[in-house]
Amino acid sequence: MMLSLSTVGRRATLWSVRTSRPFSHLNTVTTEDLAYFSKVLPPSNILSTLPPICTSHDDMVPYNVDWMGKYHGKANTILRPRTTHEVSEIVKHCASRQIGIVPQGGNTGLVGGSISLDKELVLNLGAMSRVRSFDPVSGILVADAGCILQSLSDHIAPHNHIMPLDLGAKGSCQIGGNISTNAGGLRLLRYGSLHGNVLGLEVVLPDGTILDQLSTLRKDNTGYDLKQLFIGSEGTLGIVTGVSILTPPAPQATNNVFLALPHFDNVLPLYQVVKRQLGEIMSAFEYMDRTAYDMALSHGLGPVLDAKEVGDSRCFVLIETSGSNEEHDLDKLNTLLESLMTADEPLILTGTLSQSPGQFESLWAVREGLTECVQKEGKPYKYDVSVPLADFQKVVDTVLERMVSMGLHGDHAVSKVMGYGHIGDGNLHLNVIAKRGYSSEIESALEPFIYELVASRKGSVSAEHGIGSMKTHALHYSKDSVNIEWMRKIKRVFDPLDIMNPGKVLS
Amino acid sequence: MMLSLSTVGRRATLWSVRTSRPFSHLNTVTTEDLAYFSKVLPPSNILSTLPPICTSHDDMVPYNVDWMGKYHGKANTILRPRTTHEVSEIVKHCASRQIGIVPQGGNTGLVGGSISLDKELVLNLGAMSRVRSFDPVSGILVADAGCILQSLSDHIAPHNHIMPLDLGAKGSCQIGGNISTNAGGLRLLRYGSLHGNVLGLEVVLPDGTILDQLSTLRKDNTGYDLKQLFIGSEGTLGIVTGVSILTPPAPQATNNVFLALPHFDNVLPLYQVVKRQLGEIMSAFEYMDRTAYDMALSHGLGPVLDAKEVGDSRCFVLIETSGSNEEHDLDKLNTLLESLMTADEPLILTGTLSQSPGQFESLWAVREGLTECVQKEGKPYKYDVSVPLADFQKVVDTVLERMVSMGLHGDHAVSKVMGYGHIGDGNLHLNVIAKRGYSSEIESALEPFIYELVASRKGSVSAEHGIGSMKTHALHYSKDSVNIEWMRKIKRVFDPLDIMNPGKVLS
Repeated sequence: MMLSLSTVGRRATLWSVRTSRPFSHLNTVTTEDLAYFSKVLPPSNILSTLPPICTSHDDMVPYNVDWMGKYHGKANTILRPRTTHEVSEIVKHCASRQIGIVPQGGNTGLVGGSISLDKELVLNLGAMSRVRSFDPVSGILVADAGCILQSLSDHIAPHNHIMPLDLGAKGSCQIGGNISTNAGGLRLLRYGSLHGNVLGLEVVLPDGTILDQLSTLRKDNTGYDLKQLFIGSEGTLGIVTGVSILTPPAPQATNNVFLALPHFDNVLPLYQVVKRQLGEIMSAFEYMDRTAYDMALSHGLGPVLDAKEVGDSRCFVLIETSGSNEEHDLDKLNTLLESLMTADEPLILTGTLSQSPGQFESLWAVREGLTECVQKEGKPYKYDVSVPLADFQKVVDTVLERMVSMGLHGDHAVSKVMGYGHIGDGNLHLNVIAKRGYSSEIESALEPFIYELVASRKGSVSAEHGIGSMKTHALHYSKDSVNIEWMRKIKRVFDPLDIMNPGKVLS
Repeated sequence: MMLSLSTVGRRATLWSVRTSRPFSHLNTVTTEDLAYFSKVLPPSNILSTLPPICTSHDDMVPYNVDWMGKYHGKANTILRPRTTHEVSEIVKHCASRQIGIVPQGGNTGLVGGSISLDKELVLNLGAMSRVRSFDPVSGILVADAGCILQSLSDHIAPHNHIMPLDLGAKGSCQIGGNISTNAGGLRLLRYGSLHGNVLGLEVVLPDGTILDQLSTLRKDNTGYDLKQLFIGSEGTLGIVTGVSILTPPAPQATNNVFLALPHFDNVLPLYQVVKRQLGEIMSAFEYMDRTAYDMALSHGLGPVLDAKEVGDSRCFVLIETSGSNEEHDLDKLNTLLESLMTADEPLILTGTLSQSPGQFESLWAVREGLTECVQKEGKPYKYDVSVPLADFQKVVDTVLERMVSMGLHGDHAVSKVMGYGHIGDGNLHLNVIAKRGYSSEIESALEPFIYELVASRKGSVSAEHGIGSMKTHALHYSKDSVNIEWMRKIKRVFDPLDIMNPGKVLS
């Protein structure tokens, strides 16, 4: 995902503010601190530009620059502890010295949450990558926070279990980071959110205390469920070091269909029919509008449907099923398609059911390829929002109308406004493509207009990606002042010195 | 569920402590307070023994005594607000006057969480029973906290949706109470916990502030997920007044099977086979040991299996499926049974598949009738614990062995020790029947032995029922001092005056 200029602009502003007013309450790592850390960690687990370590700039880059190359941190020291105890020792020292700490997982976030803003120490969890236990009967996995999502998937695959979440970044992202950012991803519709699937956490608090809530119980009503606070708080309340998570059995069969609909009015009725008919096997219900579909085709994806049959369809839907019996699932899908095709007032114009693993992949490719196509089309302004299902396309149309009415629609400015996303989750990816590059004119036409539009529908300005340092200015569009005040109170209780990921979530 | 004498004993002790040391920091409702409340609420929504209201003792009973008749409160005033604004006004007044408040839903809890301990005001949510909205497309229901669970089920049934939780108390319990106690119930295995299904809450905080987190979004990563703190905190952090909850589509078909296994060693392998073969349609996997099964039969339930085929089976399992296609589900169940029956080393001795709604009910009746049978057998000591699946029967056997070794096993003391519960959730109901009634000898043989046993397996001493006022002394068996200390800190942030359900959860 690219950063929109608007955000670059805002960030630049933030930076200048920060340069004139850095974290005055925090200290920077000195050679004395480094000497202390060297007693806790072996040299291989310390990177620092300070003597005697003197790590090269290049070796610091993977920790100081995010994967998109968008956020550039200034940490002079990176620590890679191997145990919870080591994390605790480091944090205790930082608390006593009032040194800021940025907890860092795979550094695959999209909002600058894992990059230092002002020379805070980076505490990277990558060296904590041990699976602590897996119980194939209950499906409960306990692992270090630094375990990479894909490696956990690989670990449990022989037992016919899967992780309850799946992300594009699975080869790099860490489970601790997934939890700290409340990652959603592709399996949320089926398996629910991490607030339901995480059974326990081990967290090092900002004073170095180890809060052990690493339960492997599905049911436990003994007092406040404190671990929930660390899910999605982006490392601002403490450092997740261990995770207990419920993993579901792997489905035995997966299938998908791709459908064309005349207009958005039919999408929600279709969603209802499909939910009822496919029931427990529906695992994805993905949406894209005509603009997105045509763009995919123009970039060589598909076609997955006959152009004549598609006609002037305005909307497309990809439905995936995951079940325990291929024959049953295909039977359900065929029955569904037949009833859709033969209805008196059909909701769909045409559709196709994948007949092979290859076809399954190519149907998905149209949906999954959209992000890449968007990048090729121009400079995208991307918004990751949640809105009520009924407003899904209306948000896109409203933005398009605004571009048209402001004379900004066309190859000279905004060539395309499109929407796609997860209907099942209410998560819309709104993409506005600036054909000739970002401009302040487009930017100011889009923001805060879109945030206000989303807020007017009681939506979320960040459905999945979080707040990080990028969206602190936009938090108030989705959370009122009472909520933000209470977030600040919670932050102060856990982190009165404001050393834990300072400047993130709450600016 | 009956109260064990042990707990009565402990409560009596607590009471005497409380009588000598009541809530000295709290004030009791006076006629002046009543005059204020009369400005906020109509007379019909105020009950008070104070003049000029002078409600009779009998009319106060439903609010001052829990449904089991176990906990007797001393509130002189009960308020039944109709709106969130009214709740807020009442709480503001109580905060200014430092009057304790007991939030009360259907009063169906099992641990005395909704009864006043020392003349605190009871704030009953029953008059807030409006469904605010239901979206049949997304399945998202928004309702007042005082809505009765069954009435919500009835409300969404015509749209083919069900509530994600189901409890024995559904005809009386309120959704706000369900959430405040993090109710589990019969559908947890299939639909997960309330931490995943609750999308938003509206809460009146102990200072009267309305915290509006009544989101209808499935995905929202904008800051801390504060609402999670109110799920399961038993009204000690604030009063839940509104709820947004995700409701799943109603299954089109339900079926069940009842199986006999030679010994517990086969239960977990069976659970794995069933999980794999039934996959997404498995909605319950209930367990009972031989003692429980025989007891059920002796009370006229069943028999559901042929006695000869049952032989000396030690364990029994009830499996339920819920799916969208009856034919497919029966096919899966038949295939499962066939493979179980014809295996070279069968895991089961015999089993039966219900062939009609009547048979479906009678299979369930054996499991669901256990609670009533237990009551008829004598005075039961009941424990609601979570333990790792592998330890399920071991906990029961260990307790039985202890009774035997202490000479307490037999009709003169403990006639039966049995276990049943939800294998899928790891939730064991351990029942110890004192044939001739409770005795301090039995009690001291059981406690703290059982709590320590559960703690030694990292289990939970309260899987579902919560802590309330009954188990505050046992909290430390499942939560260490760091956790409890942090619970206290959270309590102090939200409720520095300690007016909100004082003496509950944290004593």
